Amino acid sequence: MMLDVILLGTGGTMPLKNRWLSSCLVKYMGHSVLFDCGEGTQIALKQSENKFKPIDILCITHFHADHISGLPGFLLSMSNEGRCEPVTIIGPVGLKRVVQSLCVIAPGLPFGLRLLEYPSDIQELVFGDIKITPFQAEHGIPCLGYNLKLHRAGKFDIEKAKKHHVPMKIWGQLQKQKKVLYEGVEYQSSMVLGAQRKGLKITYCTDTRPTENIIAHAKNADLLIYEGMFGDNEKLPRAIETGHSLFSEAGELAKAAGVKKLWLTHYSPSLTEPMEYENAVKSIFPNTEIGYDGKQESLFFSE
Amino acid sequence: MMLDVILLGTGGTMPLKNRWLSSCLVKYMGHSVLFDCGEGTQIALKQSENKFKPIDILCITHFHADHISGLPGFLLSMSNEGRCEPVTIIGPVGLKRVVQSLCVIAPGLPFGLRLLEYPSDIQELVFGDIKITPFQAEHGIPCLGYNLKLHRAGKFDIEKAKKHHVPMKIWGQLQKQKKVLYEGVEYQSSMVLGAQRKGLKITYCTDTRPTENIIAHAKNADLLIYEGMFGDNEKLPRAIETGHSLFSEAGELAKAAGVKKLWLTHYSPSLTEPMEYENAVKSIFPNTEIGYDGKQESLFFSE
Repeated sequence: MMLDVILLGTGGTMPLKNRWLSSCLVKYMGHSVLFDCGEGTQIALKQSENKFKPIDILCITHFHADHISGLPGFLLSMSNEGRCEPVTIIGPVGLKRVVQSLCVIAPGLPFGLRLLEYPSDIQELVFGDIKITPFQAEHGIPCLGYNLKLHRAGKFDIEKAKKHHVPMKIWGQLQKQKKVLYEGVEYQSSMVLGAQRKGLKITYCTDTRPTENIIAHAKNADLLIYEGMFGDNEKLPRAIETGHSLFSEAGELAKAAGVKKLWLTHYSPSLTEPMEYENAVKSIFPNTEIGYDGKQESLFFSE
Repeated sequence: MMLDVILLGTGGTMPLKNRWLSSCLVKYMGHSVLFDCGEGTQIALKQSENKFKPIDILCITHFHADHISGLPGFLLSMSNEGRCEPVTIIGPVGLKRVVQSLCVIAPGLPFGLRLLEYPSDIQELVFGDIKITPFQAEHGIPCLGYNLKLHRAGKFDIEKAKKHHVPMKIWGQLQKQKKVLYEGVEYQSSMVLGAQRKGLKITYCTDTRPTENIIAHAKNADLLIYEGMFGDNEKLPRAIETGHSLFSEAGELAKAAGVKKLWLTHYSPSLTEPMEYENAVKSIFPNTEIGYDGKQESLFFSE
């Protein structure tokens, strides 16, 4: 079991000739979740050789165009690829109004849209083995960060299975399903599994100033994907004014949250060479990687 | 005096990895007109090394997403480049509703939008030396083709100037301006110029079935830019069903309209190699060129 994480784009505000707007795809067991969907995301997805159809959930951070303008085209391409099952979209308050407005040019989709505003409609969303938890960022307008956690069941415990008189024939099934009905008796997976083990946690957060709330939510994440709008520390006044973060602030936040790894994304169009600031941010948080379009990694359960 | 024509993209329905959605830029004397603005048009414009700011008029053919989904991002990039002057957008009935809906993610633009629906708000638009005339196409939903004509004044006529007692000092000015006030007397350019000469005419038409109305409007165009959704003649039923044209129909239409040159654009995503059908369409209309992203040409006045 693992999570595949792919940065489809790493641009902020405006796409560049060779940099897509920020968007991130997370894949697990044949399903996918997309974070943000700015203009061109559908092309970036194609370039990454991924598919539209397995994407069940779109998490939108906020309604600045660079994070949602690609939505109508993206949904149309999903339908073009044969998607029929409902698609869930999570976002801040106002999601329904914005999505319905944008979908004026995507009428008659062959699948339903389940639009969930945080915090009014949901606090968290459990979907199969993953749990998505939005939290508040700080960007001047309503803006969300997201935690995505992949659940990991406990180890199979033969003594426990025997104690609960679980027939050997369904031991395998109960490691995959929550419950199994066998010869008229219902058995729970908890009857054969030990304590839940550490799963995987990804935190995605852009656009925002660094805050204590983000640190609390990103705590011990396996991967923090966080905005790095400006590399140069002298841009702090501009970062404060526009509700963004410096590379160095991203590094400090990663350190305070004790995450395993930090990926930077969402660069200002003026920041054409983010690698120039790599060493500076690594001096604050060594396990930082400068994100780029197409960067990907597979995260595995630790043993 | 000339027109520069650039195909920013040549894709229909969905962008491909290496093919932008159909959009065309026409430049003349420091101004520009954009035809259609699907997702990614702002990036295609950047790749073509053109600027946002000189674009005064956007002509939208219809409201399928592949022709307008790039609008919010495009307007935001115009504002980012410092545009302050109003921008005119022409489109079919419904334009105001659609643009206002899409602009939910582009609030507070620093320039006004003048939204003109054809035929209710305008029949034609004269802007400096150009005249834009929309006309009805046939696509199942309201859809417009456009003529863009560059006006060409008559030759300077020295005898006429003398006859009207126009002072020699303003002969030059009157070849550029309609009227000049000199020593308390107003002089008209018609006092120094001969009969108007043949200008330049471009016809842009997608998405549509071929019709007599289009032939009439495209009559004698210097350049007809027309959709070629399908190369294969066996796709005629599909073309009819979806309101599109075959390459061969485009050739027949160009021939019937007596245009000087035909450029094909707006290829189906399934048509990855439009060049394969080049000879077939040239056998109908020899001066056909298979459009591609970035194709450009300068059209000059004939002598």
